[in-house]
Amino acid sequence: MKQSNTGLLQFMKACKSEVEQRLDELVRPSRDDSARIYEAMRYSLLSGGKRLRAVLMIAVADVVFGSHAHVLDAACALEMIHAYSLIHDDLPCMDDDDLRRGMPTNHRVFGEAMAVLAGDGLLTLAFVTLAGMPISPPVTHDRLLRCIEEIGVGAGPEGMVRGQALDIASTGAADVSVDLLRSIHAAKTGALFLAAVRAAAILSGASDRVLSSLSAYARALGLVFQIRDDMLDVIGNEAALGKRVGSDYSKKKASYPAVFGMEESQRLMLEAVASGHEALAAEGLSNTLLSEILDYAATRDR
Amino acid sequence: MKQSNTGLLQFMKACKSEVEQRLDELVRPSRDDSARIYEAMRYSLLSGGKRLRAVLMIAVADVVFGSHAHVLDAACALEMIHAYSLIHDDLPCMDDDDLRRGMPTNHRVFGEAMAVLAGDGLLTLAFVTLAGMPISPPVTHDRLLRCIEEIGVGAGPEGMVRGQALDIASTGAADVSVDLLRSIHAAKTGALFLAAVRAAAILSGASDRVLSSLSAYARALGLVFQIRDDMLDVIGNEAALGKRVGSDYSKKKASYPAVFGMEESQRLMLEAVASGHEALAAEGLSNTLLSEILDYAATRDR
Repeated sequence: MKQSNTGLLQFMKACKSEVEQRLDELVRPSRDDSARIYEAMRYSLLSGGKRLRAVLMIAVADVVFGSHAHVLDAACALEMIHAYSLIHDDLPCMDDDDLRRGMPTNHRVFGEAMAVLAGDGLLTLAFVTLAGMPISPPVTHDRLLRCIEEIGVGAGPEGMVRGQALDIASTGAADVSVDLLRSIHAAKTGALFLAAVRAAAILSGASDRVLSSLSAYARALGLVFQIRDDMLDVIGNEAALGKRVGSDYSKKKASYPAVFGMEESQRLMLEAVASGHEALAAEGLSNTLLSEILDYAATRDR
Repeated sequence: MKQSNTGLLQFMKACKSEVEQRLDELVRPSRDDSARIYEAMRYSLLSGGKRLRAVLMIAVADVVFGSHAHVLDAACALEMIHAYSLIHDDLPCMDDDDLRRGMPTNHRVFGEAMAVLAGDGLLTLAFVTLAGMPISPPVTHDRLLRCIEEIGVGAGPEGMVRGQALDIASTGAADVSVDLLRSIHAAKTGALFLAAVRAAAILSGASDRVLSSLSAYARALGLVFQIRDDMLDVIGNEAALGKRVGSDYSKKKASYPAVFGMEESQRLMLEAVASGHEALAAEGLSNTLLSEILDYAATRDR
């Protein structure tokens, strides 16, 4: 496994900048009296973050089709969905967090009611953005509809929302089974990673075989990302993470280190890294941006 | 203006039954561990209600195309969006209501966290349902994408979510201007009515002229519906409404009776009824289900 190299970091920086510029255009009020709700939406949406879901979609498009302008709005939609999920997760009735990326959480700034609505607004706007995407090769009406369905399934009650519901039900539970932990993680983070990769591949006209290999890659990547996240929550540096270290751990949330210990968590993560590389190799996609992203996810410090 | 007749009530009953049967099929967990979130979603989604948004879509399809099977899933999606909005509106941080249709509200049964997620899940599933609709005449890929966009705009931060945000900002305010009141109402209820009518018309292949007249009709209908709702909140019968009478009024929420008094509210409502009939007449759609729905909205007791 290689350390993340300069090329990938530059690519990620360029993606982040492109996506944030487009988000700034896409999420603007069209009338004076919706200024406040847009302010709340933009506060969380444009407050930074790695834009990893968008980076992933752009990388898949670049690898499969050779360019990525045709997935840019879909990548922005994914970031809107991610931002909505963070706003709702931080609510007092959910994780009750005061800080996110070193800033006060949405409800601490705008109040709980507006935070609920800001999340609702971002989720809805994601689908408006998707449905309004330009139809031009390789994007067809049919592929765009499939992309909307994939993203909805990944974000919905069989995907991310299900993961959050399972997480809430298990928080504080005396004993979290390994199977439940895997389910929660696969749903909470993995489902949206999978949707991002599949949606970008479908929009880019990937064959069924490539789509299937990329799906296996996405599942591995989601697992790597989440295990590393759990481990960083234990060992990470507070300033780098922008939230209190150990905050999930101390709430007895289901996490890999809590269930397996750090050493075994690291081993499971490396196993997932290997299976992700295998999936890429099957379609001759080793040594691409996608393999670099996998290595990055396993070694990142934040 | 006629009183609602038996034909319309039978039509509404048949629509309600058809929609609820389809909702029951569409909203089911595909795995054991998502049982709880689906239970919370189904609790509010399948707890009755007039299904007026679905009735409206079905009526538009019947009037424009002569049948309505092609809009059934879209009508169900609208009902999912309506149900999500009620769940979130009832939350302690929003309207803090304990009762809805005579039953404990979602968060009173499932807890606040699960209620937030049940709303999120229903909203997301609405778009999954739309994107997965069968493509068969008169529905085309292109029309379906336009329909998704219309519904998203109606439900989103320029539509229903904007109305709710304005409502929250104005609750308890010493003075609510007439313009603000109209804005709140147009956005909170009107935007989704408008989206329902336009989406059904687009899916049914309506011409631009018919679409434009139906949009004017929908705006009038939304206004009638909301003024009548406000008036029923003052005069209505608690058992029939299933919530405390005067509950909105007593919270000093912006309402037509609070701003205009009952008599002027009634006059404004009848003005809207007349403008809705005019819009229908322009396209030879007088004396259809759509005109009956308009009269019904103005005379209903619940």
